[in-house]
Amino acid sequence: MKLINNQTAGRGPQETDNEENCGPAACDEHGGNISKISRELGVAEESLIDFSASINPLGISGRVKDVIIHNLDNLVNYPDPDSKKLRQKIAEYHNIDISTIFCGNGSTELIYLIPRILKPSTVLVPAPTFSEYERACKLNYELRITNCELKEENNYQIVSGEFIRAMQGCDMAFLCNPNNPTGGLLNKEVVLEIAEAARNAECFLVLDEAFIDFISEESVIDYVKENPYVIVLRSMTKFHALTGLRIGYGIFNEKLIAKVKEFKEPWTVNNLAEKAAIAALDDREYADRTIIMMRKEKAYMENMFSELGLRFVPSAVNYYMVQVDNSGLIVRKLLRKGIIVRDCSNFKGLDSSYIRVAVKSHEHNEILIKEIAEICTA
Amino acid sequence: MKLINNQTAGRGPQETDNEENCGPAACDEHGGNISKISRELGVAEESLIDFSASINPLGISGRVKDVIIHNLDNLVNYPDPDSKKLRQKIAEYHNIDISTIFCGNGSTELIYLIPRILKPSTVLVPAPTFSEYERACKLNYELRITNCELKEENNYQIVSGEFIRAMQGCDMAFLCNPNNPTGGLLNKEVVLEIAEAARNAECFLVLDEAFIDFISEESVIDYVKENPYVIVLRSMTKFHALTGLRIGYGIFNEKLIAKVKEFKEPWTVNNLAEKAAIAALDDREYADRTIIMMRKEKAYMENMFSELGLRFVPSAVNYYMVQVDNSGLIVRKLLRKGIIVRDCSNFKGLDSSYIRVAVKSHEHNEILIKEIAEICTA
Repeated sequence: MKLINNQTAGRGPQETDNEENCGPAACDEHGGNISKISRELGVAEESLIDFSASINPLGISGRVKDVIIHNLDNLVNYPDPDSKKLRQKIAEYHNIDISTIFCGNGSTELIYLIPRILKPSTVLVPAPTFSEYERACKLNYELRITNCELKEENNYQIVSGEFIRAMQGCDMAFLCNPNNPTGGLLNKEVVLEIAEAARNAECFLVLDEAFIDFISEESVIDYVKENPYVIVLRSMTKFHALTGLRIGYGIFNEKLIAKVKEFKEPWTVNNLAEKAAIAALDDREYADRTIIMMRKEKAYMENMFSELGLRFVPSAVNYYMVQVDNSGLIVRKLLRKGIIVRDCSNFKGLDSSYIRVAVKSHEHNEILIKEIAEICTA
Repeated sequence: MKLINNQTAGRGPQETDNEENCGPAACDEHGGNISKISRELGVAEESLIDFSASINPLGISGRVKDVIIHNLDNLVNYPDPDSKKLRQKIAEYHNIDISTIFCGNGSTELIYLIPRILKPSTVLVPAPTFSEYERACKLNYELRITNCELKEENNYQIVSGEFIRAMQGCDMAFLCNPNNPTGGLLNKEVVLEIAEAARNAECFLVLDEAFIDFISEESVIDYVKENPYVIVLRSMTKFHALTGLRIGYGIFNEKLIAKVKEFKEPWTVNNLAEKAAIAALDDREYADRTIIMMRKEKAYMENMFSELGLRFVPSAVNYYMVQVDNSGLIVRKLLRKGIIVRDCSNFKGLDSSYIRVAVKSHEHNEILIKEIAEICTA
């Protein structure tokens, strides 16, 4: 095999030598890269307040920490490649069949795995939405991406009729519900209508419910068994704050189980992630506290945005897309105060009119509101 | 996209309902699946002694445990997708260029990533060797596998002339050094001869040095910069015992860096793995203790095998392939005593004539020897 020029993508040795980042090319685009920002600013991570990643501000629960500490000696063993105990817990938690559950290194592993399994030729992806869907699809296969463009006048909400029309002729579609970065929720009835249309169109519908624990009654997880064209992805990154441990899961119809097993890579879920996830799902008190706290803080944020005359996109979850004059400028000004927010301008379908901010603790939310107020009235 | 019958691979719903294992299909074949064995036997994992996975018996170091405990609050943050701090430490440790280092969810992630990047058409894989190489190659691409069969009369050692001949016409080759499951080591000069031949043949040589920390002077990690056809993989699973955390790394020539970035998936290395790996590489005292202990225990094992009249394959590392009459029978008999060893009969190129046993603590090694002696003299 000859080493061809495009394998170096035009990078000279000098550029390579000075290269700082050897992570995946796409990662600069996401929020939550607090390590990189702290390096660039030359300040400690602890001195930054990160509103760019939308993680439960309660942090990981004490019960989860205890479980991790008590399982450190077990790290000498390989993780169970079946994640059997965690899958039992998930099956119990959602009242679904254990054989339909696959755990991943975050739901991101499954986002990349699914196109390899299904090998679609045309994939529908809304715009704006989570950018990894499109990257995962494009990486390995010759396929066509069709974007379903969400409109500002609809608050970037997905309109089921339009989505269903766009799905015709596609063999796979991603639907993030609630959507990222908008926070817009499609309720269960609408999702089921889209899912039935997916079956009729013979189009696999990948429903990413990464944030749905904040409004869990809208999940369609128990519907996967009825429709072989529906896959539901869940994450423990957001609601359970197990962000750094990497744990998510997917529910596949029984007709897809053999295929998933064929393609799944081994040992991707680490030992501590499995144990921590079990403890997190057991901690109902943490879940209750989260819901109560989030309701209160969302009301506070919405109220303050309105007082400041800031337009925001209605959100069902723990982040808001807020309209600004120049997202890049606001991001830089807030960064000088040690506050990280997400510039939405690199989302396909958005421009520099929006930032995304997480809902955090009341103390942090007050700081954000105060600093935004100063910037906007300066 | 129609749901076709082979997507269910002939599995009826009833079989699916009763399915126990939803991990990757290949994982049953490996050692170290202590969770599954404990479930099957109905005994606690702690009551089993696992000689089937070859992990440093010192366990994870105290310094590593402390680092994990002190970083639990940081789990609410995404891992640094660049693993920058760990890559700095690795660069320092091996005195190599940071830009050439990519960290993975174990070296297994990289074993699966490399065929996606290089898209080879013919791949050379020794037999016997680690089975994931072949699975990774076959999963996504139409490609041909050529096996270089290792011979019992050579103690299953790779013969460089034969390997180089087999490499002609291949565009990628895997070479595990020391090899798994044999423990056979090719010294540096021989590996470099093969690497130069790989360059001449325009064949990418993936050198898996997962166990080389036990004889680190034989590593060719600092040679990657000189040859764009050589990739070196390293693991922190074996020597550093970070098995359950999932951390490995690969060194790629600068000509491949852009391609790796293009294909690498984000956030695969969890927060704690990055921190633990840094602490592990800093702990030179642990490394020294490991080398001394291993030298002593290897001498003990070899001596006892000889006393029992058991033939073993010469090994440079922390495991031995031991010749037996019927591997399956021995495995079952030892399992009744709570001892797990690796049946080598499912390695391509081997039959039921070998088991593989790890070198563990002296206390555990004595138990193994005693039980094997009883079985063999019964």
